[in-house]
Amino acid sequence: METRTEKDFLGEKQVPAEAYYGIQTMRAVENFPITGVPVHRTLVKALAEVKKAAARANMEAHLLNRRVGEAIVQAAEETAEGKLDREFIVDSIQGGAGTSINMNMNEVLANRALELLGKQKGEYFHCSPNNHVNMSQSTNDDIPTALRIASYWLSQELLGAMDRTTAEIREKAKSFDDVIKMGRTHLQDAVPIRMGQEFAAYAAVLERDRERIRRAGAELLTVNMGATAVGTGLNAKPEYIARVSECLSEQLGLPVHPAADLVDATQNTDAYTELSAALKVCAVNLSKICNDIRLMASGPRVGLYELLLPARQPGSSIMPGKVNPVMAEVMNQVAFQVMGNDHTICVACEAGQFELNVMGPVIAFNLLQSLQIMTRGLDAFREFALEGMEANREGCRRYVEQSFGVITALNPHLGYEVAAQLVKEAMKSGRTVKEIITEKHLLSPEELEEILDPYQMTSPGIAGARFLEEQG
Amino acid sequence: METRTEKDFLGEKQVPAEAYYGIQTMRAVENFPITGVPVHRTLVKALAEVKKAAARANMEAHLLNRRVGEAIVQAAEETAEGKLDREFIVDSIQGGAGTSINMNMNEVLANRALELLGKQKGEYFHCSPNNHVNMSQSTNDDIPTALRIASYWLSQELLGAMDRTTAEIREKAKSFDDVIKMGRTHLQDAVPIRMGQEFAAYAAVLERDRERIRRAGAELLTVNMGATAVGTGLNAKPEYIARVSECLSEQLGLPVHPAADLVDATQNTDAYTELSAALKVCAVNLSKICNDIRLMASGPRVGLYELLLPARQPGSSIMPGKVNPVMAEVMNQVAFQVMGNDHTICVACEAGQFELNVMGPVIAFNLLQSLQIMTRGLDAFREFALEGMEANREGCRRYVEQSFGVITALNPHLGYEVAAQLVKEAMKSGRTVKEIITEKHLLSPEELEEILDPYQMTSPGIAGARFLEEQG
Amino acid sequence: METRTEKDFLGEKQVPAEAYYGIQTMRAVENFPITGVPVHRTLVKALAEVKKAAARANMEAHLLNRRVGEAIVQAAEETAEGKLDREFIVDSIQGGAGTSINMNMNEVLANRALELLGKQKGEYFHCSPNNHVNMSQSTNDDIPTALRIASYWLSQELLGAMDRTTAEIREKAKSFDDVIKMGRTHLQDAVPIRMGQEFAAYAAVLERDRERIRRAGAELLTVNMGATAVGTGLNAKPEYIARVSECLSEQLGLPVHPAADLVDATQNTDAYTELSAALKVCAVNLSKICNDIRLMASGPRVGLYELLLPARQPGSSIMPGKVNPVMAEVMNQVAFQVMGNDHTICVACEAGQFELNVMGPVIAFNLLQSLQIMTRGLDAFREFALEGMEANREGCRRYVEQSFGVITALNPHLGYEVAAQLVKEAMKSGRTVKEIITEKHLLSPEELEEILDPYQMTSPGIAGARFLEEQG
Amino acid sequence: METRTEKDFLGEKQVPAEAYYGIQTMRAVENFPITGVPVHRTLVKALAEVKKAAARANMEAHLLNRRVGEAIVQAAEETAEGKLDREFIVDSIQGGAGTSINMNMNEVLANRALELLGKQKGEYFHCSPNNHVNMSQSTNDDIPTALRIASYWLSQELLGAMDRTTAEIREKAKSFDDVIKMGRTHLQDAVPIRMGQEFAAYAAVLERDRERIRRAGAELLTVNMGATAVGTGLNAKPEYIARVSECLSEQLGLPVHPAADLVDATQNTDAYTELSAALKVCAVNLSKICNDIRLMASGPRVGLYELLLPARQPGSSIMPGKVNPVMAEVMNQVAFQVMGNDHTICVACEAGQFELNVMGPVIAFNLLQSLQIMTRGLDAFREFALEGMEANREGCRRYVEQSFGVITALNPHLGYEVAAQLVKEAMKSGRTVKEIITEKHLLSPEELEEILDPYQMTSPGIAGARFLEEQG
Repeated sequence: METRTEKDFLGEKQVPAEAYYGIQTMRAVENFPITGVPVHRTLVKALAEVKKAAARANMEAHLLNRRVGEAIVQAAEETAEGKLDREFIVDSIQGGAGTSINMNMNEVLANRALELLGKQKGEYFHCSPNNHVNMSQSTNDDIPTALRIASYWLSQELLGAMDRTTAEIREKAKSFDDVIKMGRTHLQDAVPIRMGQEFAAYAAVLERDRERIRRAGAELLTVNMGATAVGTGLNAKPEYIARVSECLSEQLGLPVHPAADLVDATQNTDAYTELSAALKVCAVNLSKICNDIRLMASGPRVGLYELLLPARQPGSSIMPGKVNPVMAEVMNQVAFQVMGNDHTICVACEAGQFELNVMGPVIAFNLLQSLQIMTRGLDAFREFALEGMEANREGCRRYVEQSFGVITALNPHLGYEVAAQLVKEAMKSGRTVKEIITEKHLLSPEELEEILDPYQMTSPGIAGARFLEEQG
Repeated sequence: METRTEKDFLGEKQVPAEAYYGIQTMRAVENFPITGVPVHRTLVKALAEVKKAAARANMEAHLLNRRVGEAIVQAAEETAEGKLDREFIVDSIQGGAGTSINMNMNEVLANRALELLGKQKGEYFHCSPNNHVNMSQSTNDDIPTALRIASYWLSQELLGAMDRTTAEIREKAKSFDDVIKMGRTHLQDAVPIRMGQEFAAYAAVLERDRERIRRAGAELLTVNMGATAVGTGLNAKPEYIARVSECLSEQLGLPVHPAADLVDATQNTDAYTELSAALKVCAVNLSKICNDIRLMASGPRVGLYELLLPARQPGSSIMPGKVNPVMAEVMNQVAFQVMGNDHTICVACEAGQFELNVMGPVIAFNLLQSLQIMTRGLDAFREFALEGMEANREGCRRYVEQSFGVITALNPHLGYEVAAQLVKEAMKSGRTVKEIITEKHLLSPEELEEILDPYQMTSPGIAGARFLEEQG
Repeated sequence: METRTEKDFLGEKQVPAEAYYGIQTMRAVENFPITGVPVHRTLVKALAEVKKAAARANMEAHLLNRRVGEAIVQAAEETAEGKLDREFIVDSIQGGAGTSINMNMNEVLANRALELLGKQKGEYFHCSPNNHVNMSQSTNDDIPTALRIASYWLSQELLGAMDRTTAEIREKAKSFDDVIKMGRTHLQDAVPIRMGQEFAAYAAVLERDRERIRRAGAELLTVNMGATAVGTGLNAKPEYIARVSECLSEQLGLPVHPAADLVDATQNTDAYTELSAALKVCAVNLSKICNDIRLMASGPRVGLYELLLPARQPGSSIMPGKVNPVMAEVMNQVAFQVMGNDHTICVACEAGQFELNVMGPVIAFNLLQSLQIMTRGLDAFREFALEGMEANREGCRRYVEQSFGVITALNPHLGYEVAAQLVKEAMKSGRTVKEIITEKHLLSPEELEEILDPYQMTSPGIAGARFLEEQG
Repeated sequence: METRTEKDFLGEKQVPAEAYYGIQTMRAVENFPITGVPVHRTLVKALAEVKKAAARANMEAHLLNRRVGEAIVQAAEETAEGKLDREFIVDSIQGGAGTSINMNMNEVLANRALELLGKQKGEYFHCSPNNHVNMSQSTNDDIPTALRIASYWLSQELLGAMDRTTAEIREKAKSFDDVIKMGRTHLQDAVPIRMGQEFAAYAAVLERDRERIRRAGAELLTVNMGATAVGTGLNAKPEYIARVSECLSEQLGLPVHPAADLVDATQNTDAYTELSAALKVCAVNLSKICNDIRLMASGPRVGLYELLLPARQPGSSIMPGKVNPVMAEVMNQVAFQVMGNDHTICVACEAGQFELNVMGPVIAFNLLQSLQIMTRGLDAFREFALEGMEANREGCRRYVEQSFGVITALNPHLGYEVAAQLVKEAMKSGRTVKEIITEKHLLSPEELEEILDPYQMTSPGIAGARFLEEQG
């Protein structure tokens, strides 16, 4: 392989002649052979936008020669479009707070810009990774800013997936609204509920999750461009600082703005822990919902079998005809992954020291993964499990008839103790509560019919609301 | 010991004659000898308020005899005042979603009410734990409502502690604003920063934490009174439902209101995971701040020694004169506890099934503990560590002089590569960067003085802001 | 209140005249008002044993006057017996790596010894907390040693509870061995299994857990007495070091021995993380088992209802006759608590720096709690849930008959694809697989009977083992 | 693209004509577009070995036609060699307990075998994924067995990396054995220690970690082949069961053996939680060690600067000459990732229900990643950070001279209180403790010299051991 020689203050190294990356990328690849997974493409794209914004602001502040600056801008645009993806080869988990991915970017942009300027790769005198591409910047502002933008983008995609999911669940809540079933507490038969009420509750909690994620995502548009090394903005001219976030904002069509306190924004990582926490809270809820759905779909003969999921794939390599709730299972697993990722993120954020959290790379690795797998998991779950889901209406109805739980509705008429006695009797004899009450003439058949109407039992709350309204 | 006989549908049991609690409390004590820590007093108090509100709403809805109702109200008031604390003996970690603490309360209030009505304890015909005290209610609405109120109260106390803490940190930021020190990234010397800037950044992140906690706390005033068993409101009359949250709101002087969807509010526990997540995010930040403070206070001779903490206690049983940063250490440990508690809460919330999360007791145990130890930890940390904290001004200044990091300011003048070369030379020779530059005539002494003025180095960002302002 | 004046190098303080504790305890109480839970009694007891061993070794090494030494020994014995429990008032979560509880102990023993010597409390010239009671020791060896002993004791109690539990589960495995039921994978009907096989599997995993806990517990008998401040043993005479662990071993009747590398044993906390990890692994398994049991006991009419749990308490304050699986629920919650505690312990252990982990108190708080609640939880769960548990034999049998899963046994005879087709047909028509096969003359009724014998289906593995044996 | 038509009991699908995978793989790819990361290659390789062993045992038991069997064996061998890697396209996180990767394998092997048999792809009559390749097996035994083998292999690689690492640390312990430095507790100056002692302690804890990982790894060779669907071995002939683990053992040259209780081994996942817990305990220790190293290497002018790490890459894109401890930072991040992965694994293991844990895929994803990144991280850390590490001997020595901590050695001569007073005086006056004592004639210069010899201070423990030996 043909190579060119590059050097930095630690010495020389051979770089593949064709490569846009340079010596520091080479060092990083050697130093960090950890996950085998390169830095997330969305982060690369966001960083390219950051570099473009910086080049523009530097030109406007007359710090950067326009010809060189325009070449950097074009290189950054090509990178943002994914044209140079194969040049970004440093590992997701890397030491150095992201210096390696920042230098990988600086080197790629510098060499591509050199090419555009008609120079040879490596002729850094004309356009240097550090002096030109990284001008007025530091890893310590570029990388946090890029991670915020990348996380914001992915959080927006997630919000889309959440909207589609909750819309579908609300749809189900509507179509299941007349499905009377037994509610369960402690996995024990409780009192009747409508399946539509259950699905509406699923939608409600996910709508709150959506709001939490949206709110946390919105924080990400506060960036620390101009902070440079420790947040004090050393080596960044006022004219540049004043412009760079605006440039980024214009480019992205998003209300990006600089933090009021750049030292704070450089040192603290609470924007990530907040977002990850919101994802985790959502993961907890999603997992609970999937657990419910898997329970309701259990069977077909030896389970609850209240819900029928679309058959997506044969469920067993040995048991013929078996179909498993694989879409709910994968959603559960996505949720578990997000919970574990949150743990990693928290421990990494706690490890920050003084002016910078150097554990940024592992934070980025986990946060971007969480965002992406939740988005994809939700879309798959919705399309392949929610959309075709059907209620086993007949099964649900039969359950209600068999259950003792309806007796709760008799408390106001018979008292808790008498009612409890009747349940005991019903259980022992195998008869229904209704039969026993009728036999004992405790209530007239008409009263019984009215009190034990299961649909009515599921809506006194609604009645309450209506009552309240009428009272004005 | 004298006893009275009580019975429920599972059989009879002897209860101490003097006890206000009854048979179900006895059963629970036998079943759950787990932590030895009784249910949190704040939760008991909140539950008493819930019972009082329910009794009032039941009376207003003409469901509960006024004489009995008033006795229950008085019993609840006495309980809320802590007068019957010793009667609440069920363990913090209990099975049954809180039925045991609910029944403990129902029994205590019933017996105290009986006493007030001139009856004997146990004469439940006149005032029964289930039929009168628990009228129109279920564990499934009483306990979540009480936990929300208790968490809200404690979150308000925490907000107070956070306000006092951030005010004190802002105070320190002001008094340390002229302390120039070396900033550190990667624990390596970076560029100068003012200690006041560091403390301002600490305050900033805690202020965001405060807002997150406040926001999560506010959610807690949405309660599910009227939901009864599974959220449908079975056995709760519309007139009662319409009033019970209002009564609670009046009693507490807080904007308590019923959830729009009571099924949702009964089944979902995201209000707790959200609050706990906010506490955890804050804990991560607090731990990072304490780590920094312990590092800055390290020494006195063999550490950084930039900060002097008040001596609170001899630090060693063996090393004379040793004083340790014990207040920061205890704050760290509080943070670790909160992180672990959050884990427990999340796993417990994920374990919810169908209409109710039966793991409520362990959620309550951890959430209330987190709130309380953070409040107490912060107050102690502020009073005993922050207030008397002093900067080692002379030490900080000397550090800046010795450091190489200041050379970063020369990048725009000499270029990154030349500057890197100078650092190498300085390190090898043991001289300062200034000396070498002067010797090499790279810059005039005047230029050097201006560029390397450390205070200036810490404020270009501020300059940027000013510039922007002037430009209008 | 009458007081006496005490002083240390930070100044003077008034101590209640009657108190055995002294000035440093007072300082700690003021500094650490965190949990309100005093240091665990088992840790206090273990520390008293450590102090006794140290006093004995100091006397034997002629470092400590025999009269004073004997007084300290007696004071330590009284403390170990719990006679001075009310004197140990410092909070569980405290800064300073346990210096406060160590000094609380040093002060109590010194003052009690003074009393025994006929002196006044506070006359430390005759017997000083630091010079006499703490002689040859440091918090840094006393506290880790005491925590190890305390954890060992509690781990032994846990092993007892585990033995009782697994014995009971093995008992159940035996009595449920003939209960044929449908196995479930993915919560979907799979193939028949015997309930006894399920319980045997529960016992098997808990037996491995027992071994993991035992092994981790055994490590705790390696202590760092003699390490003093940083593990180098400074100020501890060889004669003392040689004896102190032996004395402790004799006192406790346990093979306590000094670590080969005292610096290692002082700095590292892996003994705690290992034990906590073993507890957590066990908690994960216990939680899974309890989840299964709650599922099997779900119903009675609208659940799986394969298992009947003893009724321990009325399950609802509103639903008459409802009985919940409260003992499994409390065991789940104990498991969740242990998982969260493990998290706290890990984060605290990771926070160790250099020669000592100062986060010891929060580690102790969580580790001892985990050990204790697991022991108590298991005993309660066994006594109140496992012992009286019964299988719903009839229900289980009916399930097997209804299920399609048995068709798997026909794979070798009909092929997977044909079998899958039959299931589809059975599901659509509502008939059993057996009926369809008979109708289609795919197999003779005799063949079918033999192949579909559910008991046989559950034991080919056993047959395999037998076959292997016969082949010799 | 040319395609062939395949069908299963859910319908038909077009498969790329050239593909070895088939319809079920296609379904899985559609269903699970989650991480974008295909199943770990080591797991694919292990699964190929499992399939080969099964085919061999089936042939030996005369269940599988030898010609077909041999073709499957050859296909499995080619797969194990990585020749068909591009055919394994299902996502790491998938629903269905691994059925999809199992079917991906079954289809690839069937089609490759068909090719070897001179048939067309898709002619499953001659060699079917389910009937021939999966004969006598289920996902429920194949996948857990493959995961155990894969984890075992990677755990062996990790043990190698740990051995290399601890050997290097022991080497450092030897070469740093004469470096006297100040020990630190609470980050405060304590008493002298030798840097070699610190490194020996690092080695000691990692050696215990190695043993924990080895022990947990060894458990992985107990497999559940023959268990089939739920562990009962349904459809697996005794002759097959008797042989399959032996075949696997022969192939791998490892003592693989069947579990005594196959139901247990199918249902329980404690082997993974145990291994992951061991990794996590090690991660906690590694993180602590890296934290120490980063602290010791802090500086160069404004930190502790006791240790010099090899310069691996320029540390900053802005600060010239800055070199960061990137190898320690990446090791920290690996540790954080392992901690989070453990969390995911635990939550996933807890989610197992009844006869099978369907969350296997996410467990595998995290466990294999943890093993691999720890191996790679350790090797990189050792090679690039440990090997070239040097002590700043002069700096360490100077620290000891300046410190007050040495005064602890005077306790036995002056008493704790007097010593504490001297420290206070020294701190105020800025003089050394030695000077003050000499001036006050508290000890003769000779005594002082002997008592305060720092090397002696670091070895009384050693002296103790020697003394003990002599006493014999």
